[in-house]
Amino acid sequence: MKKFMDGDFLLDTPAARTLYEKYACGAPIYDYHNHLSPADVASGRNFRDLTELWLETDHYKWRAMRACGVGERYITGDASPREKFDSWASVLPRLPGSPLYHWTHLELRRCFGIDDLLCPATADKIWKLTSEMMRSDPDRYSAPSLLRMMNVKVICTTDDPGDSLVYHRAVADAAPGFAMLPSFRPDRYLAGDPAAVAAARDSLCREYGKSDIRSALSAALDRFGSLGCRVSDHGFSVFGYREDPDLRGLLDFLAAEYAERGMVMQLHLGPIRNNSPKLMSAYGRDAGGDSVGRLTDPFALSEFLSGLEERDRLPKTVLYNLNPCDNRMMSTMAGNFAPKVQFGAAWWFNDTLRGMRDQIRELMETGALSASVGMLTDSRSFTSFVRHEYYRRILCSELGSLVEEGLYPCDTGTLGEIVSDVCWRNAAQFIFEGRY
Amino acid sequence: MKKFMDGDFLLDTPAARTLYEKYACGAPIYDYHNHLSPADVASGRNFRDLTELWLETDHYKWRAMRACGVGERYITGDASPREKFDSWASVLPRLPGSPLYHWTHLELRRCFGIDDLLCPATADKIWKLTSEMMRSDPDRYSAPSLLRMMNVKVICTTDDPGDSLVYHRAVADAAPGFAMLPSFRPDRYLAGDPAAVAAARDSLCREYGKSDIRSALSAALDRFGSLGCRVSDHGFSVFGYREDPDLRGLLDFLAAEYAERGMVMQLHLGPIRNNSPKLMSAYGRDAGGDSVGRLTDPFALSEFLSGLEERDRLPKTVLYNLNPCDNRMMSTMAGNFAPKVQFGAAWWFNDTLRGMRDQIRELMETGALSASVGMLTDSRSFTSFVRHEYYRRILCSELGSLVEEGLYPCDTGTLGEIVSDVCWRNAAQFIFEGRY
Amino acid sequence: MKKFMDGDFLLDTPAARTLYEKYACGAPIYDYHNHLSPADVASGRNFRDLTELWLETDHYKWRAMRACGVGERYITGDASPREKFDSWASVLPRLPGSPLYHWTHLELRRCFGIDDLLCPATADKIWKLTSEMMRSDPDRYSAPSLLRMMNVKVICTTDDPGDSLVYHRAVADAAPGFAMLPSFRPDRYLAGDPAAVAAARDSLCREYGKSDIRSALSAALDRFGSLGCRVSDHGFSVFGYREDPDLRGLLDFLAAEYAERGMVMQLHLGPIRNNSPKLMSAYGRDAGGDSVGRLTDPFALSEFLSGLEERDRLPKTVLYNLNPCDNRMMSTMAGNFAPKVQFGAAWWFNDTLRGMRDQIRELMETGALSASVGMLTDSRSFTSFVRHEYYRRILCSELGSLVEEGLYPCDTGTLGEIVSDVCWRNAAQFIFEGRY
Repeated sequence: MKKFMDGDFLLDTPAARTLYEKYACGAPIYDYHNHLSPADVASGRNFRDLTELWLETDHYKWRAMRACGVGERYITGDASPREKFDSWASVLPRLPGSPLYHWTHLELRRCFGIDDLLCPATADKIWKLTSEMMRSDPDRYSAPSLLRMMNVKVICTTDDPGDSLVYHRAVADAAPGFAMLPSFRPDRYLAGDPAAVAAARDSLCREYGKSDIRSALSAALDRFGSLGCRVSDHGFSVFGYREDPDLRGLLDFLAAEYAERGMVMQLHLGPIRNNSPKLMSAYGRDAGGDSVGRLTDPFALSEFLSGLEERDRLPKTVLYNLNPCDNRMMSTMAGNFAPKVQFGAAWWFNDTLRGMRDQIRELMETGALSASVGMLTDSRSFTSFVRHEYYRRILCSELGSLVEEGLYPCDTGTLGEIVSDVCWRNAAQFIFEGRY
Repeated sequence: MKKFMDGDFLLDTPAARTLYEKYACGAPIYDYHNHLSPADVASGRNFRDLTELWLETDHYKWRAMRACGVGERYITGDASPREKFDSWASVLPRLPGSPLYHWTHLELRRCFGIDDLLCPATADKIWKLTSEMMRSDPDRYSAPSLLRMMNVKVICTTDDPGDSLVYHRAVADAAPGFAMLPSFRPDRYLAGDPAAVAAARDSLCREYGKSDIRSALSAALDRFGSLGCRVSDHGFSVFGYREDPDLRGLLDFLAAEYAERGMVMQLHLGPIRNNSPKLMSAYGRDAGGDSVGRLTDPFALSEFLSGLEERDRLPKTVLYNLNPCDNRMMSTMAGNFAPKVQFGAAWWFNDTLRGMRDQIRELMETGALSASVGMLTDSRSFTSFVRHEYYRRILCSELGSLVEEGLYPCDTGTLGEIVSDVCWRNAAQFIFEGRY
Repeated sequence: MKKFMDGDFLLDTPAARTLYEKYACGAPIYDYHNHLSPADVASGRNFRDLTELWLETDHYKWRAMRACGVGERYITGDASPREKFDSWASVLPRLPGSPLYHWTHLELRRCFGIDDLLCPATADKIWKLTSEMMRSDPDRYSAPSLLRMMNVKVICTTDDPGDSLVYHRAVADAAPGFAMLPSFRPDRYLAGDPAAVAAARDSLCREYGKSDIRSALSAALDRFGSLGCRVSDHGFSVFGYREDPDLRGLLDFLAAEYAERGMVMQLHLGPIRNNSPKLMSAYGRDAGGDSVGRLTDPFALSEFLSGLEERDRLPKTVLYNLNPCDNRMMSTMAGNFAPKVQFGAAWWFNDTLRGMRDQIRELMETGALSASVGMLTDSRSFTSFVRHEYYRRILCSELGSLVEEGLYPCDTGTLGEIVSDVCWRNAAQFIFEGRY
């Protein structure tokens, strides 16, 4: 029996341990997609307690609490920070096998050096200890310090094309030891409620002094580019490329812009949003009422990518699917356009132990794992970078198992190079072209 | 090498064995969805032989026999009971890895104390032994005795709203040591062939002396409620909530009725029925010609559940999918409305070792296993309650593996509470509100 | 730690080793679906080097090379054979977990007796050694010799109904120690671009002196039958049986013809072809731009099969799905019509370690593995028959694990019979009716 979360956490073979220690453990983090707050980074926000750090916006935890019967007052309601933390502490032991159980304890260990298990019996001690650490050493627990602590080299936040990017500029000027780059996320200008789209387009046109949305988006890309933007991001519940000619035109236009600028296009496909009107009306979006939607139509995806390729306008692209049953479709679709198109990391409900394993195995069997751009956090939390550690341990475990089972020779040199590539070098090259 | 089906069957770690022995083994059974015959229970039916007990209605076994080339005469035809049993005995050893192999031997052991492996060489001995046991001790092998033998506290049969429930009343009066409650299954009044639906509705209206189907269904719910009915059940090949306004209206009406009465709504989604005209014409429905159908549209499901929530009419609900590729969609859709909506147990073609594991893992990673209402048999067989044992061993095995692999601390106290909850306490509370 | 690809490759339990050595290792190969060139067999083609043997048409390897960033010149372009081989050697170590890694080394071992691992450091040695072997002993490395070397009894090539079958006739006359039978693949006469379909039909009618396509196809079946044809093959990106009345009529007609002739109908469902216009224009079809498409509609499949059964015209059928998420649907759909309809082997992007395991497990749990017709290569390569070995090892490993884990008794006699059946006897019977 292995001790819970010891040094060999998830590393079940000698080869896995060697690979992790030698190639993955100290590797830098290039987090090319997340939802961190640029304002928090620019202002050097200090967090006061674990509720601020963990429970303010984390809909993963909220969903788990609701499933375990915690009342909404203790989740998004007016309970005190301590009450909310205690609610989380009471739920956590009830989540065996959940990534939340692992993330929480990895964060306690890596960010606070606390090895205790969070549960009702330890909640008070852990709350007081961490609160005191954050109070007495605010610099160590500020937003930028947490990024440096986790060896982050680059983060790409997710930003509206109309954003002034004032925070990104401030961070760039402050040179905090990592780069914070904007990502271009134009969803609300492309499709949705017609009136809302029209209003958004008008506003963007005014912002950039342009008379049409394409010129405005192009001007926005110039502004984003001036601050080092390398990636765009598009989210679709249903990828309506074939049905909506307006969307089709704009997507083709934007993809060509990305290609010309050497930017990477990300497609996040398949969530179904805001299912609970109760949560939506009480809290708004991102309240934990989102879930896994329909499979993506491979014909629509093929038409989009092949049309771009035919016109020589295919940008570097990363495809993400929320429904895990799209794994093989997505991985092999990416393979049609390799190496320009990548099958992206396990996303959202899939960035679990088994979800990540499945994505890694999919790449091994129907793509080429060694060429993968690896992991990203896709998170709003400043302590969530331990998910890179989680991914890296799983990656090394998978490769180590091949050696253990006689499915690959015991060549940790070659495997180590692959680990380095997947953990950071491929992302540094594919996304950032070696600039960071 | 483990001995076949020894005491540690499916329990591969010390923690799994502890959890099973201490928390799962002796736990009562709350079987909130099955297709047992109320008449058989009420009449105290005595079974004469294993063909009556096993092969009369079990389309799982029939399908396996057909796949192995057994002629229809020996399956549903006019062969003698003994010939049919011998056919089954000849097929069984040809089914390594099938749940049928495990169920059959669990039933022989638990119900008859027979450890022999069923195969052509042992068929005669086992036939004679079991037939003699049933003949000489009919009380021990009557339908109600088999339920008591398996520690069943409640069974919910599946009943037509027009049913008089005379058998349920008789069983309640006899107080046999367990409760037999009706479940409300109104499928044929809701959708299908228009003429058949109209006739069914007319008949139900007459039965209850009502002039419209809603009043009749409501009256039926009253009758069902008076006999302790706690659950309804709806089966859909394709969930036509968005396309069929009549169905939509009735579903909304019924769901509100369930909510008002504190009843649980079950949705069984995705089979494709009666595919073989040969079987249908020779035998009728439930002949083994059903299979896994299309994925369920998450938008339809979301529209149904969110509409109910918005109108404050969402009943407690359990979602079951037949296509296992709906697992993540279903689990996360349930999570949008937790704790009111549950992702139900692996169903039909999925209640296998791997199917149950997948459902348990899905809950662990994208829901909260500890809040699950666990297993049910969904069976027509009085010996099928060993499937609860099968499920419980798999549950304990999954939790034990977490401990063994260092993914959860060795806290069998907390895990044991979770095992008790999932095995029976959550069902006793969520479905039966502590009444049994 | 197991040595890479030792004698126990993939055999991780004593029972697996016993089963493989005693029942699978020396078993003959009945390869009832592949894309080998009849001309190569008839002409006794000699291969000059590993590039001819491996890289001429293998889009699996091409895709892996592209994913790893190899330029097209070194894949399908005008680089020299040696340069192409070196490119492959440089990519191979970068493919841990890929079936290509295993296939390549199995082929080196079984066909050339070379145990070295292919990588840049060994590329020169292996190139020279294998080229010299093929040069100095051309008879041993001719197309028919490679088939004999692999213990092949029958191969079924994939042929156009208009084919003269001159090569099949020549091989039959030469009696090379195995049978080469044509398979009937009429896709281009059934559906697609209307002008192309019309032209194809005209041409086939002329070829057979018939005035309508049905008569021409029937005459073609006569010609194919005279050369021992046992199987047909239909490929569909989307199975349009319900939407296209012309296709429906022809499929019904052909299926009835197959049934009358005792032939087996194969349905390959779900690829999406020629996604990359760049590859299509540079190379044409089968360039590696194909990938996994949409799920198959079970209602369409059911309508086709049940209609045939109702008219008593259902031929023996094997169903193959490209999207692995159709596994349970397909396996259970086949089960509706068992034993006439089979769930076929893991296909194309699924004939990997995990893909084959999943297909075997699917059969074990929702079908009857022991009745399966097992593996086929579906390949264009004369050394690809090692995939049967790959499959057989996985099969024995799966059965051995059941024994090891106490899920099936240690009865290697019964399991051995099942292994023999799945490896070759079921195919010899179901497909070839004992004629070879």
